[in-house]
Amino acid sequence: MIVVLQKGAKEEDLTNVLKHLKMHGFATHIVRGTEKTIVGAVGDKSRLVNIPLEAMSGVESVIPILAPYKLASREFKPEDTVINVGGIAIGGKDVVIMAGPCSVESKEQIMETAILVKEAGANILRGGAFKPRSSPYSFQGLKEKGLEYLALAREKTGLPIITEVMESENVGIVADYADILQIGARNMQNFTLLRKAAATGKPILLKRGPSATIEEWILAAEYILVEGNQQVIMCERGIRTFETYTRNTLDLSSIPVIKHLTHLPIIVDPSHGTGKWRCVTPMSKAAVACGADGVIIEVHPRPSEALSDGSQSLTPEKFNKLVNELEAVAQATGKALSTPVTDNSKVGV
Amino acid sequence: MIVVLQKGAKEEDLTNVLKHLKMHGFATHIVRGTEKTIVGAVGDKSRLVNIPLEAMSGVESVIPILAPYKLASREFKPEDTVINVGGIAIGGKDVVIMAGPCSVESKEQIMETAILVKEAGANILRGGAFKPRSSPYSFQGLKEKGLEYLALAREKTGLPIITEVMESENVGIVADYADILQIGARNMQNFTLLRKAAATGKPILLKRGPSATIEEWILAAEYILVEGNQQVIMCERGIRTFETYTRNTLDLSSIPVIKHLTHLPIIVDPSHGTGKWRCVTPMSKAAVACGADGVIIEVHPRPSEALSDGSQSLTPEKFNKLVNELEAVAQATGKALSTPVTDNSKVGV
Amino acid sequence: MIVVLQKGAKEEDLTNVLKHLKMHGFATHIVRGTEKTIVGAVGDKSRLVNIPLEAMSGVESVIPILAPYKLASREFKPEDTVINVGGIAIGGKDVVIMAGPCSVESKEQIMETAILVKEAGANILRGGAFKPRSSPYSFQGLKEKGLEYLALAREKTGLPIITEVMESENVGIVADYADILQIGARNMQNFTLLRKAAATGKPILLKRGPSATIEEWILAAEYILVEGNQQVIMCERGIRTFETYTRNTLDLSSIPVIKHLTHLPIIVDPSHGTGKWRCVTPMSKAAVACGADGVIIEVHPRPSEALSDGSQSLTPEKFNKLVNELEAVAQATGKALSTPVTDNSKVGV
Amino acid sequence: MIVVLQKGAKEEDLTNVLKHLKMHGFATHIVRGTEKTIVGAVGDKSRLVNIPLEAMSGVESVIPILAPYKLASREFKPEDTVINVGGIAIGGKDVVIMAGPCSVESKEQIMETAILVKEAGANILRGGAFKPRSSPYSFQGLKEKGLEYLALAREKTGLPIITEVMESENVGIVADYADILQIGARNMQNFTLLRKAAATGKPILLKRGPSATIEEWILAAEYILVEGNQQVIMCERGIRTFETYTRNTLDLSSIPVIKHLTHLPIIVDPSHGTGKWRCVTPMSKAAVACGADGVIIEVHPRPSEALSDGSQSLTPEKFNKLVNELEAVAQATGKALSTPVTDNSKVGV
Repeated sequence: MIVVLQKGAKEEDLTNVLKHLKMHGFATHIVRGTEKTIVGAVGDKSRLVNIPLEAMSGVESVIPILAPYKLASREFKPEDTVINVGGIAIGGKDVVIMAGPCSVESKEQIMETAILVKEAGANILRGGAFKPRSSPYSFQGLKEKGLEYLALAREKTGLPIITEVMESENVGIVADYADILQIGARNMQNFTLLRKAAATGKPILLKRGPSATIEEWILAAEYILVEGNQQVIMCERGIRTFETYTRNTLDLSSIPVIKHLTHLPIIVDPSHGTGKWRCVTPMSKAAVACGADGVIIEVHPRPSEALSDGSQSLTPEKFNKLVNELEAVAQATGKALSTPVTDNSKVGV
Repeated sequence: MIVVLQKGAKEEDLTNVLKHLKMHGFATHIVRGTEKTIVGAVGDKSRLVNIPLEAMSGVESVIPILAPYKLASREFKPEDTVINVGGIAIGGKDVVIMAGPCSVESKEQIMETAILVKEAGANILRGGAFKPRSSPYSFQGLKEKGLEYLALAREKTGLPIITEVMESENVGIVADYADILQIGARNMQNFTLLRKAAATGKPILLKRGPSATIEEWILAAEYILVEGNQQVIMCERGIRTFETYTRNTLDLSSIPVIKHLTHLPIIVDPSHGTGKWRCVTPMSKAAVACGADGVIIEVHPRPSEALSDGSQSLTPEKFNKLVNELEAVAQATGKALSTPVTDNSKVGV
Repeated sequence: MIVVLQKGAKEEDLTNVLKHLKMHGFATHIVRGTEKTIVGAVGDKSRLVNIPLEAMSGVESVIPILAPYKLASREFKPEDTVINVGGIAIGGKDVVIMAGPCSVESKEQIMETAILVKEAGANILRGGAFKPRSSPYSFQGLKEKGLEYLALAREKTGLPIITEVMESENVGIVADYADILQIGARNMQNFTLLRKAAATGKPILLKRGPSATIEEWILAAEYILVEGNQQVIMCERGIRTFETYTRNTLDLSSIPVIKHLTHLPIIVDPSHGTGKWRCVTPMSKAAVACGADGVIIEVHPRPSEALSDGSQSLTPEKFNKLVNELEAVAQATGKALSTPVTDNSKVGV
Repeated sequence: MIVVLQKGAKEEDLTNVLKHLKMHGFATHIVRGTEKTIVGAVGDKSRLVNIPLEAMSGVESVIPILAPYKLASREFKPEDTVINVGGIAIGGKDVVIMAGPCSVESKEQIMETAILVKEAGANILRGGAFKPRSSPYSFQGLKEKGLEYLALAREKTGLPIITEVMESENVGIVADYADILQIGARNMQNFTLLRKAAATGKPILLKRGPSATIEEWILAAEYILVEGNQQVIMCERGIRTFETYTRNTLDLSSIPVIKHLTHLPIIVDPSHGTGKWRCVTPMSKAAVACGADGVIIEVHPRPSEALSDGSQSLTPEKFNKLVNELEAVAQATGKALSTPVTDNSKVGV
C-alpha cells in the first residue's frame, strides 16, 4: 500500500500515518519526492486490512498495490481450474455449450427444447424456474414446478441442468435439482446468497453484475472460494453503458483479463449480453475466438411465443447453425466443442 | 404500444402481428408511412403484457407508450406522498436530515454519535448493523448486536432509526428494531427482499442501484407498492460512470425527474454518492436546492478510526456546519429543516 | 511515480527498470514487499515524462503520484482566478448568468431574446452562430451572419456575448465578435483549436466533453494555460451515462472537485446537461448551491419554434422566475447575483 | 414520427400539434388510447425535419420511427461497400491487417517497422504523424516530417499508408501523402473536418468516438457520404465505461450491428480498444470471428522505448504470431487474410 501525503502535509501528519500503519503491523518506507512525500507500507496482512487513512489529516490518497483477492488469483493457483459436471469438463481444453429457454414455461416446452438442443450439440441444459423481473407485472417463473420439469428433461436427455437461484432461502431446493447453481447478475454482490450457494458444494456460475468492474466480480468469486467451494465458473453477460441499440455491452475483453488474473473458467452469455438474437451467433464465435471456455445460449422452439426474452432467443434452426459455426472457430483456436453426452442416463444429483 | 415493421415486411407479417395483438386484447391502428408501416396497439392491459413481438417475422422494433409502472406514477396519485416516522414527516414541506456512522462499531460509538448528531440537528439516526462489503475480508457488521445498540441509542436520544436489511431472512429481526428499513443499492432489484420488506408495513428507503435507470428504480418501488405498502422513500446515491475521482456520480437531476414522474419522497446520500467527505456538504446543499426532501449523511466521531467508509464520513464539527448551511438553503427554497425531536421518549416500534 | 513489479519478476527486470528511470533523471527507491517489489521514482521532471515502463519485462503497472497538470492546479496558484468580461467578474463572489437561444436564428429573434434576458437579469448573452449538429440534415447555424446579429444585440443591450468557435480556421472571425470564446464539448480535446483560441487572449469557456474525466478536462484547460492565456472558465454540461431520461447526466460533484483541484472558475449548463426544460431551474439552483460561479441557460421567445434544442429551452417567463429563485439560493450561500449591466454602451471588443 | 400527448392534454394542444405537423408537410393519424393519445406523422421529409414538438404544450414525448441517416443505411444500398486501396480490398471477402507504430518517431523506426510488419503479413502501414495527446506535455508527433517518412516506408515496402488527420487545415497536406485518411475518435463529430476530408475523395477510416452511440457514429459517416465520398471505413476502438482495467471497453457487438444497419466495412482497433498488449491478440481473433473486415494493430520494434502507447504495442514477434492465429480464425469463418502486397512498387497517390 502506498500512502500519498498532500503537498505541505505537516511532519506530525506523517508521524501519525506511520503510527497507524505500524499499529496494524506494517513495515514502512518513506520516499520524499520533490513535491510530495509518500509512504510505502509492507505487511503480510496488507490484503486484509482496510484502514481509513484517507480520512487522516495530511493524507491525499491511498493506493493499494496488492489485489484485494487471493484465492481467485492466478498467483495463488497457477494452473487452470477445471470443473466437472456430469462428465462435462468446464475450463478444460474443450468448449462447452449450455442452451435452453430463458424460462421454463411448461413441461412440454422444456422437454421439447431439451431434446432439440441436445440433438444440436448442447452439453448442458439451461432454464429459469425462479425469474428475476424488473417489473412486478411480468411472468415470474414456475418456481419449484419449473425445477421438477427441468429434472424430467435431464432424465430424458442426460443433459446436466443449470438454473438460477435468486435468494438464500431457496438455495436448498434449487440445489436439490440443479447440477450447476447460477447466480444472476443482479445478485453478484448478494453476499449471503453467495455464501449459502457456496456451502452446497455445487458448481456455481457467477454472472458479472451489469455495473461490476472485473475486480469486484473476482471479489464476489472470492466470497465463494473462501467458503471452501472451488467450483466457480465466471460468466460475462454484458455491462451497462450508454449504448442503447444492444441491451448491454458485452465486454469480451474480460475473457483474456479473467484468464490472466485468475485460474477460473469463464463462459459468455451473448443472449443477455446483446439482447438481440441477430448478435448471438457472431458474439458466440467471438467469445470462443478470444478464449472463452463456453457459451450459454437462449433457445426457444417459438421465440415469438416466449414468456420472457423472446427477442434474444434463437430458434432451434439458428441454434443448430450456431453450433456448427462454433465448431469451426473452436478448432481454429486449437480447441474442440465438448463431446455431447451420448446416453440418457441420469447425471448429477 | 407501437409496433414498427421492417421496410419490406410482408403483408402476412402484418397480419400475424395484428392477430397476436388482438389475441391479447388490443385494438389496433395501422399507419402506412412512405417507408415503413407501424401498428398502434391500444388496450387496457397494455401495461401488463409483454409479448415478444420483436421475435416475430417482419417486426423491426416495439416501442412502449405507457410507463411500465402504475401505482408509483404521479398520474395515478397526483398529490405528494408524505411518510410519518416518529413525528418526522418525510416528503412534506420540511427537509429531513438522517445522520450517523456507516457501521455500528460498538455501543459507545453509536451512543456518542447519536447524541452528537441529535445535538447538531439530525432527525433520524442511521447506522449499519448488517454490512454488504465487496470484499469477504472487510468488516461485515455487528449484526443483531448492532441492532440492539441502535435501539439503545434511540431510547437515549429519541431519534427514530434507519438501518439496512440485506436479505429476506433477516427482514423480521431488522423490522423488530428499525423505524425505517433501508434497501441497499445492490439489492434494488432483489425482488424477494422488496416483497418481504414491504410486507412488514414499515417505511422503506429504496436506494437507487448503481447502474439502474430511473425507470427501473421506479419499477422497484412499484414492487413494494403492489404489496400494499405505500411508504416508499426513494434515495439517490450515485450511479456508476467512467469518472473515477468520485466514487460514484451523484445524479441530482433524478430529483426533479422523480418528483415529476412519481408522488414519492426522495432523499439524497452524498456520502456514498461521492465517496469524498469534501464533497458531502456542497452536494447536500445542491440536493436541497433542487428539491430533495432530505439527506442521509455519514458522520463518525473519528473518521480515521472508522471500520468502514471513513474517507467519506464527516466529523461532528463538519456535520454541525453542514446543518447550518443546509438551513439557509432550505429557507431559500421556501422550506425549513425538520424540527429536531425534542424529547427522549422512545419512538417507533 | 511508482513502478510495481510482477510477483516473480527477475532481478534483471528490476535492474533494467532502474536503469531506465535513472536515464530519465529519476532518483529511485526500492521497497521489497512480501509479495511484490515496488520502485518509487522521484524527479523534477516526473510530470513531463511518459516512459512506457508498462511495456518492460517484469513490470506489472505504473502508478503516477503527481497530477499530470501543473498551471491549472490549486497548488501552483492557490488564489481563485477571476475573469473580467465587460465589467462582469466571473469566478468572484457573485454568480453570473449567461442566457440566450441555442442558435441565432434571425436578427429579430436574437434582438428580442437579448432584451428579454437582460431585463430578467442576465449578465451575458449566449447564442450559437456556428452549430455542431449530429446530423448533416439539421440546421447548421447562420455562421458569420449570426455573429453580426450577436454584435448588434450587444450594441443594443450592453450585454457581452459568448459564442462557440468550432474550428481553428474560424477562430479569428469569431474572436472579432465575441467577448468569450466557447469551446464545445465535442471539441474539448481538439488541441489545435484550444491553442488557437488561447492565442487570441480572449476568455475561453471550456465545456467538459461528454466522456471526459475531470482530469482530462483539466488537462484540456492546461493546453490553454500553457499558451499564456490564463482566462479559462470551466463549464460542466453533463456526461454520458446509461440513463436515458435525461440527455446527459449533469455531474454537479465536479464543481467542488474543480474548486478543490484548480483555481479556475466553473459554471454549469443545465440546459444541455439535462435536455429537459423542466430540469433547468432546479439544476441551476443546485449548481449555485454547491458553489458554481454561474450558469448558462438556453432561453427562446417561443421554444416550440426553435430551430434547435427547443425542448430544453426556457420561455422568457420561466427564465424570469429562474433568476428570482436563483437569487435566493445565491444569498443563502453568501453570494449574490452579479449586478446586471445597466447602460447600453458597447462592451468588449 | 410518433407524438405522444400527456394524459389530460387538451383538445387545443392536439389541434396545435396537428397544425404544426401539417405545416411541415406531414400526414397525421390520431390514435386515442385508454390513457394517452398519440399522433402518427407520415411524410417524405420526415427524416430531415427536426421540429421541437416536445416544447409544445401537452406534448409528452416525440418518438422517431425512421433512422436519422439515409445514405449509410443498408436499406438505401443493400450490397456491401468494398473499398480498394492500392490493390487491397477492404470490406470484401478477405480480412485486412493494418499495422505499425502509434507514432512515427524517426525515419529508422518507421522503415524498420514497415519492413517487419510487411514480412509478417500486414497489408497496410499505420503510423501517426500528427498526434492528439491528452497532455500538452506529451510527444505531439513529427508532423509533416512524419508524413515524409511514411511515404518513404511506402516506397520501400509497397504498403499503402494510413495516418490521422487532426484538423481541417491539414487535410490537404495529409491527403498528399496518405492512402487512407484516419479520423480519430475525438474528432468523430468534428463536422468541418469530416467534410474537408470527404472532399479529398480519399478513403476515410472513421473511428468511433469514446462516448458515441452506434447511431451517432453512423450519422458521422453520413456527413462524409453526403459530400459524395462513398469510401468510409468504420473503426470500432472501444467506448468509455466504468471498467478501468482496460483503457476502453471494446464493443465488438458493434460489428454485427454496423453490418446489419449499414453497407459500410468495419475494422477493429484492439490496441486502443483495450490498452493492454496482452489483450490485443485475443481481441483481434474475436473481431474477425464476429465479422470484422480487418484489424488495425500497433506494432513497435521495442515497445518499452516507444514515445507513445508502448504498453499496448506488440513486438514484431508477437505480431507475427497474431497474424498466424488470425489466419486460422479467418478461415474458420469462411474468409482468408488479404494477400500481402508482393512487389515494392509505389501504390496510392
